Amino acid sequence: MIYKRVALIGLGLIAGSIALAAKRRGLAETVVGTARTAQTRETAQKIGLVDEVFETPEQAVKDADLVILCVPVGAMAAVAAQIGPHLKAGCVISDVGSVKQAVIDAVSPHLPDGVIFIPAHPLAGTEHSGPEAGFATLFDNRFCLLTPTDAAPVNEVARYRDFWEQMGAKVEQMDAEHHDRVLAVTSHVPHIIAYTMVGVADDLRRVTNSEVIKYSAAGFRDFTRIAASDPTMWRDVFLNNEAATLEILGRFTEELFALQRAIRKGDGELLFDYFTRTRAIRRGILDAGQDTDAPDFGRTRSD
Amino acid sequence: MIYKRVALIGLGLIAGSIALAAKRRGLAETVVGTARTAQTRETAQKIGLVDEVFETPEQAVKDADLVILCVPVGAMAAVAAQIGPHLKAGCVISDVGSVKQAVIDAVSPHLPDGVIFIPAHPLAGTEHSGPEAGFATLFDNRFCLLTPTDAAPVNEVARYRDFWEQMGAKVEQMDAEHHDRVLAVTSHVPHIIAYTMVGVADDLRRVTNSEVIKYSAAGFRDFTRIAASDPTMWRDVFLNNEAATLEILGRFTEELFALQRAIRKGDGELLFDYFTRTRAIRRGILDAGQDTDAPDFGRTRSD
Ligand SMILES: NC(=O)c1ccc[n+]([C@@H]2O[C@H](COP(=O)([O-])OP(=O)(O)OC[C@H]3O[C@@H](n4cnc5c(N)ncnc54)[C@H](OP(=O)(O)O)[C@@H]3O)[C@@H](O)[C@H]2O)c1
Ligand SMILES: NC(=O)c1ccc[n+]([C@@H]2O[C@H](COP(=O)([O-])OP(=O)(O)OC[C@H]3O[C@@H](n4cnc5c(N)ncnc54)[C@H](OP(=O)(O)O)[C@@H]3O)[C@@H](O)[C@H]2O)c1
Repeated sequence: MIYKRVALIGLGLIAGSIALAAKRRGLAETVVGTARTAQTRETAQKIGLVDEVFETPEQAVKDADLVILCVPVGAMAAVAAQIGPHLKAGCVISDVGSVKQAVIDAVSPHLPDGVIFIPAHPLAGTEHSGPEAGFATLFDNRFCLLTPTDAAPVNEVARYRDFWEQMGAKVEQMDAEHHDRVLAVTSHVPHIIAYTMVGVADDLRRVTNSEVIKYSAAGFRDFTRIAASDPTMWRDVFLNNEAATLEILGRFTEELFALQRAIRKGDGELLFDYFTRTRAIRRGILDAGQDTDAPDFGRTRSD
Repeated sequence: MIYKRVALIGLGLIAGSIALAAKRRGLAETVVGTARTAQTRETAQKIGLVDEVFETPEQAVKDADLVILCVPVGAMAAVAAQIGPHLKAGCVISDVGSVKQAVIDAVSPHLPDGVIFIPAHPLAGTEHSGPEAGFATLFDNRFCLLTPTDAAPVNEVARYRDFWEQMGAKVEQMDAEHHDRVLAVTSHVPHIIAYTMVGVADDLRRVTNSEVIKYSAAGFRDFTRIAASDPTMWRDVFLNNEAATLEILGRFTEELFALQRAIRKGDGELLFDYFTRTRAIRRGILDAGQDTDAPDFGRTRSD
């Protein structure tokens, strides 16, 4: 047992997976939770996702030693304002938001003195959401990035780190701003691009009579899965990581124009060299153990 | 048996899969082949990919009832020029190129009268290539698009169609130019975009000390797999489907700029609505049976 009482605010994919992963290893004596809608609360209750479901965040955080905000990034500020006055003195508060600096700015002002804030971001997810989407092995072998400020006591950071490691994750620490820049490249911009491509295809579908869907080949198929990700979550990611997203998008457009020009000019050598270079990166990712060469990308749910 | 003697020019992923799929069902009495390099020919011989491996295309097509060009799109013209004079009268010649109008323009002038040209494009592939990449089930349940001209006799088109259907494919016919427009959306532009994104990340990797690879999250990981596709094949695709690729890229850029502007202006409603629309497309693809909801996208090699 690492924390006696854990409270999860939000009961979706990430919260559900935390509840199941923590239970699997006995990391908490009690896991309680709450969600915005009665429907989610009822489902969570019915499937026994947590030990107790509360109607409000205020009730849920009472006496909790660890509180994790598992709501969309844009909802963090309001939730923090709501629970701030009800947090147990000396408790740890964390979040799982996909953007870190904006969450720190939104949450910190609402926290009473003595409460320890350790922001986190597990690099794990699927395109599914809601209380029934979670599974105990979601974090296995995935990175979880912590972005604590200097104010967080070292021993508390170590304890929270242990919590994630025992849920299966590989934990690393970094600066929030740096996190947001790296994630803009590896996750946020790829998502906006996939959304755009699928949007273009949707427009054309009306022209080509659904052939775009019918003949959807590799490449596009993967894009549609990415572009099926939760609209609320991703709207909030882009609105809250604006600077880094726009910077990387700028670089992307620049490169795309260069390749477009090569196609127009028939410059096969430039295209060949570019494609050869990008091919090598795949090798690096396989070597880093962040993916497998198997057709399922190591994403199989093993529970 | 549908064809007595089948000759494959090129012995890579697609040719190898044709050889194995045809053998599996006894669709040909003899399957022979040839490849450009001695190394590929030797490997094909060693693993028994075809019944006989020839040193030159001229030798390979001798007495063949069906000849399939399985080389990169940009190599089709030279191969056709080489084999043209050696084709058996009345034989069927086909290709598996990912672009169709350019291949028709490149191959047709070299074919003697009486030879029947039926271009084909199986919508199936992996990011692997070479003689050892093929497998018998590659075409199972995948579309194969035929783009014959009016000159092709109906009964010969039906026979060739049967050949692909018995290899496991769902066969459809369409106009070559229409094929190229549809594929630009569903395959070619998604590939150039993935290549671009991975190229951008590669530039930044030098800045962020390989963190981009280390923390590569869903989204980007899928892009790297797409951008690991064969550089020669894809160079040829873009050079030979220039018009459609550039047209779709133009639309893509326009949409991307609209989303970029929404991020800059903080227009969450536009982003949310856009992401909700693209999410629905995924459902259409699952319904069309072109993908599965399983984490492996139904891509598991079942042999
Ligand atoms: N999915 C991923 O791939 C992934 C990966 C890493 C991190 N994250 C981050 O994890 C967080 C949760 O994501 P998730 O995938 O678990 O989402 P999810 O399955 O959609 O669950 C979100 C939860 O937040 C609640 N919620 C939504 N809007 C709210 C609001 N305005 N106020 C209060 N509660 C609200 C929802 O309650 P109701 O069900 O009652 O509406 C639901 O319980 C997000 O910050 C996201 O950025 C996601
Ligand atoms: N891979 C896919 O996803 C996919 C899907 C549908 C259609 N296609 C189309 O199928 C065709 C073959 O692709 P593949 O994936 O099978 O490629 P592959 O595995 O790389 O095999 C290509 C074959 O063509 C030969 N070749 C390459 N350049 C040549 C040249 N200049 N002259 C003569 N022969 C040459 C190669 O010989 P060596 O090995 O001796 O060099 C090799 O045997 C391409 O037109 C492609 O557009 C591919």
